[in-house]
Parts: sequence; C-alpha cells; structure tokens
Amino acid sequence: MTYSLRCLLFLLISLQVQSQHKDFYRYPPSEIVTIHSNILKEERTVYIHCPKIDSSNVDKRFPVLYVMDGENHFELLAQYADYLSRPDVLAIPKIIVVGISNTNRRRDLTPTQSILDYAGKPDSSNITQESGKNEAFLQFIRTELMPAIEGSYRTATYKVFAGHSFGGLSSINCMLTHPAMFDAYIAVSPSFYWDNKYLLKRTDQMLTKGAVLNKKCFYSDGNEGGSSSFFHLDLLKFDSLLANKKLVGFNYMYKHYPTETHMTEPIVAYLDALRFIFEDWERH
Amino acid sequence: MTYSLRCLLFLLISLQVQSQHKDFYRYPPSEIVTIHSNILKEERTVYIHCPKIDSSNVDKRFPVLYVMDGENHFELLAQYADYLSRPDVLAIPKIIVVGISNTNRRRDLTPTQSILDYAGKPDSSNITQESGKNEAFLQFIRTELMPAIEGSYRTATYKVFAGHSFGGLSSINCMLTHPAMFDAYIAVSPSFYWDNKYLLKRTDQMLTKGAVLNKKCFYSDGNEGGSSSFFHLDLLKFDSLLANKKLVGFNYMYKHYPTETHMTEPIVAYLDALRFIFEDWERH
Repeated sequence: MTYSLRCLLFLLISLQVQSQHKDFYRYPPSEIVTIHSNILKEERTVYIHCPKIDSSNVDKRFPVLYVMDGENHFELLAQYADYLSRPDVLAIPKIIVVGISNTNRRRDLTPTQSILDYAGKPDSSNITQESGKNEAFLQFIRTELMPAIEGSYRTATYKVFAGHSFGGLSSINCMLTHPAMFDAYIAVSPSFYWDNKYLLKRTDQMLTKGAVLNKKCFYSDGNEGGSSSFFHLDLLKFDSLLANKKLVGFNYMYKHYPTETHMTEPIVAYLDALRFIFEDWERH
Repeated sequence: MTYSLRCLLFLLISLQVQSQHKDFYRYPPSEIVTIHSNILKEERTVYIHCPKIDSSNVDKRFPVLYVMDGENHFELLAQYADYLSRPDVLAIPKIIVVGISNTNRRRDLTPTQSILDYAGKPDSSNITQESGKNEAFLQFIRTELMPAIEGSYRTATYKVFAGHSFGGLSSINCMLTHPAMFDAYIAVSPSFYWDNKYLLKRTDQMLTKGAVLNKKCFYSDGNEGGSSSFFHLDLLKFDSLLANKKLVGFNYMYKHYPTETHMTEPIVAYLDALRFIFEDWERH
C-alpha cells in the first residue's frame, strides 16, 4: 500500500471515529498582482492586503503601507494591520498593505553602484552583482505601482514606505531624494554602510526643512555585533544628524533593540513603527 | 449601470491599460476542523496551522501550541510560528499551532461558578451567565482534541497551552490541576480576580515540585490601570508565590509591559513567550 493510500485510509478512519469535519482555514483575502513595468522592463509582483469592509466603513478610504521585501514581511505586516485595527484594539486605523517582492534586490534597493563591503573594502565577489538602481525602482513605484494601486483599491492619500536592511536604505534614500512621495518612512536597520556610507555622508545636506515638513520617520537597529556594530554606530550618527538639524514639523523616532538580531528585529520594529506613525490617529 | 458592473468594467479597463494579472494571495494553508465533543455535548471548531514540510524535515514531528480564543489569536501565532522558524531567523523550531475557538467563553475558561466582579462584589448581570466549567473544557482537550490532533498531524510530544485574560486563567488552572497535560504554560494577563481570587489563593498549596518538574510557565501583564491595577498586583503576588516556593526544575518568566494595554499585550507577550519556551531549542 502506498504512503498516500495509507494516509487516505487513516484519514477516513479518523474522520469516522471522531466525526470530524475538515476544511481549509480562510485567511482574510489578499491579492497577488503582476504588473508590467516599462521603467524596469520586467514583470513585478506585488501582494495586496485590504481591510475588511463592513457597513460602518463602506465609503472609507485607507492609508497605504508599501513594504519592500514583500516575500519576507508582507504577511507579518498584514497580520499587524488586521490585529492593531480590530474594534477591540484600535491602536491604528485600518490600512492597506502592499508588499513589493524582489526580482533583483541589490540592484533595486541600493542608491549607488558599488563593490565595497561593509568595511569599505572592495569585495571582488560583488563585481558581478548589479547595484545602484534605486532611483529607477522608486520611479517604478511612483509612476507605475502607485497609480495601479490607487486605481484599483480604496486608497486614502496617506502613504507609508517601509523597508529592512537594504530596504531600510532604500526608504531613507527615498525620503532624502523624493520626500514628497510618502508621508512616513520606516527604516529597520538600514544598511548605511553601503558604498562607504554614501547616504549617511549626504544626509545633512539633503535633508531640508521644507521637504520633510509634516513627515514622520522611524528608524531602528538591533544587536548586530554589539555596541560597536557598524549598524548601531551609523544609526547613532544619523540620529544625531537629525537632532542637530532641529527640523520643526519633522517627527522622527529612533529605537535600539539590544535583544533582537538583524532578522528578528523587524517583528518588533514594524510593530513600534506602525504605532508611532499612527499615534495621532483619531479613534472613533 | 449597477455598481458591480461599473467595478467590473473599471477592472477590465485597468487590466488592459496596465497589463496587470490579479490572483488570490495564498497564505500557508491552515485547516478548520469541526470535532464533536461528547464531554461538552457540542461541535467544537479548531484551526490548525502546520509547518511547511520540505525535504529536510519530511520525517520530523513538531511541538504543538494549543491557544485559546482561537478566533482572536490563531492568525497572530501562526504568523509568529512561521516567521520565527524561518531558515534565516531560526529563533524557535517549527511548531504546529492549534487555535480553539469559543462557544461559551466564560463557561469554558473559568474554574468556578461565580457572579462576583473584579472587585469581589456580586454583579447581578453575571447571574444569567454560565461559568466554572473549565474542568470539562480541559477534559475535552485531553481526551478528545489532543487524540484527534495527534492522530492526524505530525505531532511531537511537546505541548504548550496558551491563553489571554480568561484564557490565561484557564492556562494557570490547567498547570495547577493537571500539570502533566502540557510541557509549558502561557498566561497573558490571567484574570486572577475571578471568584474573589479563587486560583491565586490556592496556588501555594496546589503548586508542587514534582508536578511542575521540567515545566515552563510564562505570565505577563500590561498597563491595565497603572501600577495599582488588580491585574498587576495579582501577577506580582503570583510571581512572589512562585519565587518563595523555590521549585528546582521549574522554569518561569514574568514580564510586565507598562506600555501595552490589555488588548495589545498579546502581540508582544506571545512573541516573548514563544522565545522563552523554546530558548533551549537546539538549532541545526
């Protein structure tokens, strides 16, 4: 008797004995949309999670959170979006979550072409890897992805851009180069080391008061090699740069998570970030 | 033209213009099982989330987490189970999550029949509400639910029991009255106030060394009325009771979350609890 036949027989027996009824669990429906990008000259896949519409919000429109590395963080953020906006929780408003999945992560999420490693030394294994096309990726989001989302879903104008590691770097790069694209930026352990700290060195000059007026920015790091880790030192530098600029109307939060690794940090950081960004949201 | 017709037309147009392809997002499959309980004399619905089996773990069996209030916490715990056991995270092992949904929450999750409110005063609105049948609910789990789960899924013997509020009370009651049922107990803001602190008053006498040898227990409270909240005071009392007993081989953790409400606390507490319970898990 084959394994599957035995399984089937066992299933039938147990169904009978325990009078069980089995069905698939239905998670709140989310969608996968494939969109052709003329800018990136490829198909891009995005995941979209919408709030449950009920009679009390049939005419409502919802803020949109765009998160990079969709294949890794979409489900977590969709779950937080659902849980935190539950009627018995009401910590944030209902939001739409858009997870952008990768085709060439290093190409899309880094601001410059570089073969340097985290210590600023040339790494020959990087030579064959494309990088530095974040500007094209951001233009894909602005001119192709956003119109597609806004044309098909009940979007409000408020938009959040979220990323981790290279995705965090991309989020900060967007805030510095195209601050008007989003209302809030989340950067979980952004890879500021990239290209000999290219972005960190230009932050002071690029961050201007008018551009980030009424914007919010959440950034964080974990325990990524202790207190002397380059992630931590770079974030401290970025944080002091922002403090020194004293930009009135720019609302930012820095969180350091000494008990989280680079890979567990997004679980707590995205939770804190969502609550920080929507802290002034008016409950009904 | 009806609203749905207009939607369809709009969808067709946007599909054409943006050459989008839309499909349902597939969450990792979970199941709903309805099981008839002879003990409770009713149908009970449980949600089951299994780890993704790949070639490296085709013969593996997985610890099982049973969580009460399944309709509120199953998706969150299924998401944590997936995320924390990812190959690039490996904070906990792969586990099976079983969410038990409610039919009569107060009846099933409280240890005694009571009409007293949190202050110990009779509340006439409680008179019509059934309570105090936690023992039958635990027997349903032990003699009907567990055999059904263990007969149909790739379960290891290690079992965790988790609950919030009344569910936390039920988890502690199970640890005190049937400690052998589970290897670890999670109680997020257990409602120790129940029936004039019935369970808290009996903890010292009921908790015996042999019974909880090699067991783990995680309990927590949030900001539920400040430092003088009955939740917080009761948890402090429970914590000091446990400390005074000096039970060698019993491993417990108390976490107080001053920035979390009663309803947001499960998000952080279940995360910390999972990591505490599996902290000695051997990574591969």
